[in-house]
Amino acid sequence: MSDSSLEMPVTYAAVAAAADRLREQAHQTPVLTSRTVNKLTQSQVFFKCENFQRTGSFKFRGAYNALAQLSPQQRQRGVLTYSSGNHAQAVALAGQLLGIKTTIIMPQDAPAVKQAATRGYGAEVMLYDRAEVTREFVAAQLVAETGATLIPPYDHPDVVAGQGTTAHELIQTVGPLDLLLVCCGGGGLLSGCAIAAAALTPNCRVIGVEPEKADDATRSFYSRTLQTVHNPDTIADGARTPSLGTITFPLVLHYVHDMVTVSDEALLRTLFFLWERLKIVVEPTGALAATALLNGPIRAPGAKIGVIISGGNVDICQIARLHSQIYPN
Amino acid sequence: MSDSSLEMPVTYAAVAAAADRLREQAHQTPVLTSRTVNKLTQSQVFFKCENFQRTGSFKFRGAYNALAQLSPQQRQRGVLTYSSGNHAQAVALAGQLLGIKTTIIMPQDAPAVKQAATRGYGAEVMLYDRAEVTREFVAAQLVAETGATLIPPYDHPDVVAGQGTTAHELIQTVGPLDLLLVCCGGGGLLSGCAIAAAALTPNCRVIGVEPEKADDATRSFYSRTLQTVHNPDTIADGARTPSLGTITFPLVLHYVHDMVTVSDEALLRTLFFLWERLKIVVEPTGALAATALLNGPIRAPGAKIGVIISGGNVDICQIARLHSQIYPN
Repeated sequence: MSDSSLEMPVTYAAVAAAADRLREQAHQTPVLTSRTVNKLTQSQVFFKCENFQRTGSFKFRGAYNALAQLSPQQRQRGVLTYSSGNHAQAVALAGQLLGIKTTIIMPQDAPAVKQAATRGYGAEVMLYDRAEVTREFVAAQLVAETGATLIPPYDHPDVVAGQGTTAHELIQTVGPLDLLLVCCGGGGLLSGCAIAAAALTPNCRVIGVEPEKADDATRSFYSRTLQTVHNPDTIADGARTPSLGTITFPLVLHYVHDMVTVSDEALLRTLFFLWERLKIVVEPTGALAATALLNGPIRAPGAKIGVIISGGNVDICQIARLHSQIYPN
Repeated sequence: MSDSSLEMPVTYAAVAAAADRLREQAHQTPVLTSRTVNKLTQSQVFFKCENFQRTGSFKFRGAYNALAQLSPQQRQRGVLTYSSGNHAQAVALAGQLLGIKTTIIMPQDAPAVKQAATRGYGAEVMLYDRAEVTREFVAAQLVAETGATLIPPYDHPDVVAGQGTTAHELIQTVGPLDLLLVCCGGGGLLSGCAIAAAALTPNCRVIGVEPEKADDATRSFYSRTLQTVHNPDTIADGARTPSLGTITFPLVLHYVHDMVTVSDEALLRTLFFLWERLKIVVEPTGALAATALLNGPIRAPGAKIGVIISGGNVDICQIARLHSQIYPN
């Protein structure tokens, strides 16, 4: 693995540099343990809780790491991105901290609460009509007009390196691991964490976890050819991305040891378990990795296991509705 | 304060001894901070998160500290308590860990989930009919029959000393405080924490927080005469206790600097804020102290403030219903 890793688009050195860059800006998020979980799984489990990260998800790490490396000229012209999710708020806050103007392109029908949260971090929200144009078109137009830099949600080396600081921090806190479970949407968090694990705990198996209904990365991993999904109907909204990226796909192939999928129902059961037993608010995508262990295919008795909880931005009313579906009366 | 503190029923030495006793058994719970909260309150706030404690609340500290000090004869005869709440599970787990048989007296109509959780920790649950007998009568009968020791939920020196380890741990983690906010039901947590604060951070003001509808301790504090409430209709179920106890009342008078109340609506707004911004699951009673600062009467700009989050045992469906009442549509 080490021979060809130098040809990879993101190196461990980039992750370590990102960790230095983030030290004063990101939260060093808590690592939680649960005797109940350890008993159930007969292993030693460490939950790295990025739901406690600034803006409520790991996305702040990648966004800040990317924006902090822009040149003075680039900073002057501002940055933009398209996202109605966690990456939007992450870019907005990173811009606010670095004094960089940020523009977030969102569909007109994005929830008002997400628009407001993004504006709350000082970003300009630009709405577009999904029926008329694509977000890529709106972004390209804006880049042409303003010279702003596009910071994509995952397919960018600085974003990947930033996300990798999550595992970097976890391993520095708890020591070497036997197994690391990471959720996978576009593969930014997964590939970044796998790079960190390969350097810091080389005997650790890194496994990516996807929703069954959005299993493009799993199929890509096994076929070694990039596979896509189209608007998958999964509750894990952060994993609805159409495919891995041109940067994250080779990294996943190189650094990740396996990919597994979990059902939406297993995901929700895990989410409520985490709320009720660990007392943490986790969004559906944020519970993917834990699901593989608690209600999914992973069994590793005796192992020391890291589980990334990736975010906690969730609408309580929506969760309550889902709860009543899964556990009627 | 120091002169008469020797006449008090619980000393700082008892709290420190409890901390030693609990070291291997209780979780050292995380202390969370929030830039948003610090900005809103213009102060530096440290949330001591006992919702992450074993059994989901601080009650484990007091229960374990009390049970661990029983004589071999007392252990042999077992312990009992009456509670359908957090104290029940705390006593059950402490008994399980120490090999002491525990019996919990609950009303027949206690939620099945709480009965099951308590049995899950190995306790025997004894149900009684509220229409026919009082819990005190059932308990007295059982004590007479079996010689078991009654561990009351707050009015016991070892219980108070155990709860005080919460503030002890917080102050040892973050250093001296200017202000400590603690919720108040029967006053076990409040008086224990106030004893620890008086010893470890003597310039710290300790303020107890009650629901408006269950303001007996506040009235007792100001009148210096024990006041009661009867079945108060507050969402903070842990603060529905009829009055302070014969042990906790003098401790509160001696060590606590002020008492304030908050409305149920302010409490719920705070609870949802903690869920949505801090990503932690908090039960209504557990959010009382935070409410005084975030949606209540306490203003302390520039201060270093400790806030005890006392527990997180809450029914998600119930919370969802309350959410839709407070934030319609």
